[in-house]
Amino acid sequence: MNTFGTLFRLTTFGESHGPALGSVIDGCPAGVPLTREQIQVALDRRRPGQSSITTARSEPDQVEILSGVFEDKTLGTPIAAIVRNTNQRSGDYEKLKQEDRPGHADAVWRERFKHRDHRGGGRTSGRETLCRVIGGAIAEAYLARDLPSIRTVAYVSQVGELVASVPAPGLTREQVDAHATRCPDANIRDEMSRRILAAKEAGDSLGGSIDVRVEGLPVGLGEPIFGKVKALIAQALGSIGAVTGVVWGPPDLLQRIGQPGTQFHAVKDNYGGIQGGLANGEPMQVRAFFKPPATLMEHAKGGRHDPCIMPRAVPVLEAMVSMVIADLVLQMNARPHSL
Amino acid sequence: MNTFGTLFRLTTFGESHGPALGSVIDGCPAGVPLTREQIQVALDRRRPGQSSITTARSEPDQVEILSGVFEDKTLGTPIAAIVRNTNQRSGDYEKLKQEDRPGHADAVWRERFKHRDHRGGGRTSGRETLCRVIGGAIAEAYLARDLPSIRTVAYVSQVGELVASVPAPGLTREQVDAHATRCPDANIRDEMSRRILAAKEAGDSLGGSIDVRVEGLPVGLGEPIFGKVKALIAQALGSIGAVTGVVWGPPDLLQRIGQPGTQFHAVKDNYGGIQGGLANGEPMQVRAFFKPPATLMEHAKGGRHDPCIMPRAVPVLEAMVSMVIADLVLQMNARPHSL
Amino acid sequence: MNTFGTLFRLTTFGESHGPALGSVIDGCPAGVPLTREQIQVALDRRRPGQSSITTARSEPDQVEILSGVFEDKTLGTPIAAIVRNTNQRSGDYEKLKQEDRPGHADAVWRERFKHRDHRGGGRTSGRETLCRVIGGAIAEAYLARDLPSIRTVAYVSQVGELVASVPAPGLTREQVDAHATRCPDANIRDEMSRRILAAKEAGDSLGGSIDVRVEGLPVGLGEPIFGKVKALIAQALGSIGAVTGVVWGPPDLLQRIGQPGTQFHAVKDNYGGIQGGLANGEPMQVRAFFKPPATLMEHAKGGRHDPCIMPRAVPVLEAMVSMVIADLVLQMNARPHSL
Amino acid sequence: MNTFGTLFRLTTFGESHGPALGSVIDGCPAGVPLTREQIQVALDRRRPGQSSITTARSEPDQVEILSGVFEDKTLGTPIAAIVRNTNQRSGDYEKLKQEDRPGHADAVWRERFKHRDHRGGGRTSGRETLCRVIGGAIAEAYLARDLPSIRTVAYVSQVGELVASVPAPGLTREQVDAHATRCPDANIRDEMSRRILAAKEAGDSLGGSIDVRVEGLPVGLGEPIFGKVKALIAQALGSIGAVTGVVWGPPDLLQRIGQPGTQFHAVKDNYGGIQGGLANGEPMQVRAFFKPPATLMEHAKGGRHDPCIMPRAVPVLEAMVSMVIADLVLQMNARPHSL
Repeated sequence: MNTFGTLFRLTTFGESHGPALGSVIDGCPAGVPLTREQIQVALDRRRPGQSSITTARSEPDQVEILSGVFEDKTLGTPIAAIVRNTNQRSGDYEKLKQEDRPGHADAVWRERFKHRDHRGGGRTSGRETLCRVIGGAIAEAYLARDLPSIRTVAYVSQVGELVASVPAPGLTREQVDAHATRCPDANIRDEMSRRILAAKEAGDSLGGSIDVRVEGLPVGLGEPIFGKVKALIAQALGSIGAVTGVVWGPPDLLQRIGQPGTQFHAVKDNYGGIQGGLANGEPMQVRAFFKPPATLMEHAKGGRHDPCIMPRAVPVLEAMVSMVIADLVLQMNARPHSL
Repeated sequence: MNTFGTLFRLTTFGESHGPALGSVIDGCPAGVPLTREQIQVALDRRRPGQSSITTARSEPDQVEILSGVFEDKTLGTPIAAIVRNTNQRSGDYEKLKQEDRPGHADAVWRERFKHRDHRGGGRTSGRETLCRVIGGAIAEAYLARDLPSIRTVAYVSQVGELVASVPAPGLTREQVDAHATRCPDANIRDEMSRRILAAKEAGDSLGGSIDVRVEGLPVGLGEPIFGKVKALIAQALGSIGAVTGVVWGPPDLLQRIGQPGTQFHAVKDNYGGIQGGLANGEPMQVRAFFKPPATLMEHAKGGRHDPCIMPRAVPVLEAMVSMVIADLVLQMNARPHSL
Repeated sequence: MNTFGTLFRLTTFGESHGPALGSVIDGCPAGVPLTREQIQVALDRRRPGQSSITTARSEPDQVEILSGVFEDKTLGTPIAAIVRNTNQRSGDYEKLKQEDRPGHADAVWRERFKHRDHRGGGRTSGRETLCRVIGGAIAEAYLARDLPSIRTVAYVSQVGELVASVPAPGLTREQVDAHATRCPDANIRDEMSRRILAAKEAGDSLGGSIDVRVEGLPVGLGEPIFGKVKALIAQALGSIGAVTGVVWGPPDLLQRIGQPGTQFHAVKDNYGGIQGGLANGEPMQVRAFFKPPATLMEHAKGGRHDPCIMPRAVPVLEAMVSMVIADLVLQMNARPHSL
Repeated sequence: MNTFGTLFRLTTFGESHGPALGSVIDGCPAGVPLTREQIQVALDRRRPGQSSITTARSEPDQVEILSGVFEDKTLGTPIAAIVRNTNQRSGDYEKLKQEDRPGHADAVWRERFKHRDHRGGGRTSGRETLCRVIGGAIAEAYLARDLPSIRTVAYVSQVGELVASVPAPGLTREQVDAHATRCPDANIRDEMSRRILAAKEAGDSLGGSIDVRVEGLPVGLGEPIFGKVKALIAQALGSIGAVTGVVWGPPDLLQRIGQPGTQFHAVKDNYGGIQGGLANGEPMQVRAFFKPPATLMEHAKGGRHDPCIMPRAVPVLEAMVSMVIADLVLQMNARPHSL
């Protein structure tokens, strides 16, 4: 089950300390403008070592396109792209050969897959998410051609106990990227940075939440029952290791879930842009909750892990949501409904 | 996309006011003891008109098995089962022909599918969930044969502003069903009932949450990346119309999401029985948040809708989770891993 | 694996002597004109007891639509349709309880599925193909709306040793149905009838071949590699029990397979309407070879089986091919390719 | 649709003149012994330039494993393997930029995918089949661990007009590989070689057939209806460009398809090892018919194409059949049937 999607399909492969990670995207239409640089730019937003509040590990994560693109346009054939693992300091992990890392899935994975790979998280490593970013960059290249009105922007909305206020409509990725935390709330993000650095110092870690907002979706996007936007986004975000909760609707929805229906339904915003499982034409809003990372503690000295992964997870969530949208757009294209 | 699952597959069909709804379950092994009554008992737990706090509408929802079962055992062939719609008071809906019901997906659905069916919610009706209950009853029949230690129990944990306390381990469905609210907290459930009845009187409705707890899962259950237990349960529950949020972990997880990692990971219970996307052998816990129903308001007089659907949604969530588990058990069987 | 197709999906269920057989067709667009009678007409062409050369068993095979159609148009929701088994003379089969029928899959099926159902072929019965005819009727209803130029016509091209000559272009189903053999060659079909009747008298059976011809396919129909028209038609026809060979190309292709390439490629007709796995705009031609039925011998007295199933298999092949085409048309719609 | 299989899944990518071709195999169990050399050996059997009767083009086709294997055992994660295109003499093809190659799918592909890639066949090139050989090598590695009794051997059975006699049971790949034609019939294969060389001289090409024989299949292998061994092998072989017909059964089956049932069913061998769509425990036999290649004519001088591709197609067919078997074995494992 390393494939996601029905018509726009992502297959990912690769272990964190093997030769390479990569993606095969099958189903992207032909003629979509796509360069290596577009994918690289997307990967650079996820890359470790971007700022002082992320891991000190520095991996260039250079992407190479192996197929499916010719003269900067897609061919309609599968697009394969890989990233070599250059930083294979497996010596660091040699000592882990005998012991499970606390808070990690090592024991569970070993029980199930008779795992013998002690070189870091292997397939369970967060490094796998770079494959999703590749897929997302291609999904966005497709959507930019056919549905340029769609804008998918994610941002950090909570770090530890600090909860950001809701940003105004029209938020851009540039605005989000302007701060190392990827939180657009200017009143709180510097404090977030300080807390992350303090956690790093203390060998500790922080969780929180990321919000994803999608503007410009066509009315009716989504498929009935098991292909509801809601259901697919849940699977998409739930497949990210650290995500421990998904809420569709405005950021404060859970605070108002106890309201009586007359009050709740009076505010159309409460639908989060989804009705009957389909996009209703309003901005779509989703919040994903993140556990604090487990890896940090034992590696505090090495500084090779993120005290707070959310700033780097922002492009991963955007990628997953963009792939769901691209897939549903293709499915919507497929069936011409009439009266 | 009316099919769910990879090896244990549910396909559902039927509109709320058409001739029948039904399910085809493909992939259930042969030789599983299964009677019509088992499915009927499951459906009866979801049936409208069970108590004063649910809809007054009374539909017998008698299930008929059309295939796949012979002499009370499964044949290994697709199991089809249907429920006739006997209560087709389409006259009630005649007046809706021209107008969209507020809070409903009617307009969105019409835009997308050029919908012409004014007979109630059609395919978007909550009535579709009876098809899931059929699938769940069969999944549980299979699990009872091969993994009888698994116990899946859901219960209402919040109604409006009232939040129940966490029940002790070993909770049974009988205990849950003992009260019309399906809330096991004896200190709060009578008040929940009163609030639901008051909402009904007022033509109003209430949302809240349901918790699902699964004991006895085999260690390692789940598939990598997009087949994580977490991801599949998210899709499964996200496919239910009124669900607006899913959290994996103990009921109060979101209150503690801001804790530093050292504190968070010290409590193994915080994993909710899932690590690296796989079952870790501890009880699995999931909470689903429900919007208050939208239908009630305009139909308050007729009393034909639920002021609070959660008591009846309990068996639907159990069914979806049981199908995810059955599917993952078959997938786990499929691949004999070795050292 | 009782589901066929990617976007236009058929799921079939039912045993030959259980309560009912049926189909769920998921993915048909909304607004397609479709009546119960259209499906019934298709089923009547497959029905036993149509003429003296088929089985004397008479089953009315009345279809009932359970969902997905409203006021004679599809709703875009799953279309479920069932046929009750009215002729359950299981007493006939009681004697088979202990013994396997020669030439039948009984022993294999029992080994694999621990089969306990002695009531005829159960799921392996040719009766299952009526479910395909339902799916085909719906696929054709869709194609009639969106691609009315497509004409799919199958006909019997060989019975026993008798090989028919190739019919002229423009052959219609009416012309095929004009003779009980469903062979359009007026010079040989009466002799075919006589041989079939003689085989019936002798408690024997006859195989042969059926050709399928499709005119009006859009150029380029098909998906790369594993979704080639050729590959999907092979799976579609190979899933029919009695089919033992499939050849794409003109009826006499195998006689000319030994020709050198310069000669072979000089005749464009040799491509059978397929190049690079995609439809090339010429009529597509496929031949399916049929084994003689195995059931006849032991039941010669009862006369309840077909000495030659091909006349009744003609609509089954048309149905399978139409579903492949409908599925590929939806897939072609899905992806707007550009330069 | 560049993915094949349900539980043992092959995804292929790559154009004949792009940077690389490759495969991702998802679903292989963990702990299967697998080395790069095993895959390389398989690829070497398909490689161009093996003998005087194949193309003079020499491509080393060195495989690199990117993921899924650690210390010569599979990890249970996706196995990605690539082959770089080293021989990108695109100048050779520059002249083709304006004109379509006769007998090729260029025009059809361009109509459908708005194809702009003039560098040889791109995705329609027979070179794509090396990806299948990678998948087949891994399938066979898995089967060697769990079902070592299975032996899949293919061989050339017809070249032009020359038809080989049926080899004795127990044929090995070594015996097949002992002659450049990969035909085991010592009485005819030298003449086959001469005809292939003569065709090459004349700028011509030859088709024919390949037989695949599988011994040691478990009784009952296969899934009902659309997952019949027969149906899946048809799709598997039908997905190979030059294959124009597939027959299940002994090599001379079509000569005897006209026999009456009493005669036909008296010879159990006529079932080709398949009954009711499932393996019956006898050797399985399949014949695939090949068109003469179209590419040769225009490139006769350059000698860069095969006058007869069948010797090199033998390992491709074995690979496809092995993947079907591995997939069905995993599916058989998945569901424990009982009485």
